[in-house]
Amino acid sequence: MTSQQKVTMKPVGYVRTQASHAEVKEKNRICEIEIQPEFSAALDGVADYSHLYVLFWLHEVPEENRMTLKVHPRGRADLPLVGVFAARTNHRPNPIGLTVVELLKVKGNVLTIRGLDAYNGSPVLDIKPYDYWAIIKEPKVPNWWRKLDAEKKNEPQL
Amino acid sequence: MTSQQKVTMKPVGYVRTQASHAEVKEKNRICEIEIQPEFSAALDGVADYSHLYVLFWLHEVPEENRMTLKVHPRGRADLPLVGVFAARTNHRPNPIGLTVVELLKVKGNVLTIRGLDAYNGSPVLDIKPYDYWAIIKEPKVPNWWRKLDAEKKNEPQL
Repeated sequence: MTSQQKVTMKPVGYVRTQASHAEVKEKNRICEIEIQPEFSAALDGVADYSHLYVLFWLHEVPEENRMTLKVHPRGRADLPLVGVFAARTNHRPNPIGLTVVELLKVKGNVLTIRGLDAYNGSPVLDIKPYDYWAIIKEPKVPNWWRKLDAEKKNEPQL
Repeated sequence: MTSQQKVTMKPVGYVRTQASHAEVKEKNRICEIEIQPEFSAALDGVADYSHLYVLFWLHEVPEENRMTLKVHPRGRADLPLVGVFAARTNHRPNPIGLTVVELLKVKGNVLTIRGLDAYNGSPVLDIKPYDYWAIIKEPKVPNWWRKLDAEKKNEPQL
């Protein structure tokens, strides 16, 4: 397989949110994922977890943004220019979103969740349980990340 | 977009490992990811993290396994039958692997990492930094998960 070859996926569901594009980053926002009816049974047992990983497709990222290799995190010129694999930017060769969300409710084929930073209509590619094996107690992060984090902690809570 | 519509990605690199299929689950195994040369610049700054998320494509999962909706975790009949979105099974509608790995070295377009449970030649779809925002201190998990975890802790370390 070469980089010319393709990997093909199908959406297993879609994000449903009332939030505007500016609002989806608010961590307390609640939204829904509507799983396609043919995959409903794959949700059995999901309610035993408090948190899930949601893998979704950033369907509004323009094709040309997939060519970007370096960014200033958050578009801030005061932060260093880093490779897109060192940042959470949506400018990526494959714009897959990966977010840990809080699971509030499962009803039929609909999940109600908190904390998903996805636009309305985003295709969901996979849902995985969040468990203790994924927890790294003291990861090392760049200095620019610590700066952003410190600023975030000083922001008023929404 | 309906479930008939497709999402298409291109590999950004490939997993290189000497490990046999049976050995890739060993958490201390070291392997490499060779990023396609055209994406090398996207790795700048990655070395400032101790851990990364690797998203990869489970290219050896047969097409028919993508139809499985429920599994016994680890194939164990003594554990409950749960939906694939409640388990880490590779039987999933979109067989994307998601693993937190320890970054040991970056040299040119090659990452040396520990803990990736991917077969040799697996296409890599994305690499994302692991940071504190992804850490949930006390997630709720199912009883079957706690049973598996307790067994694991009693196993001899490899």
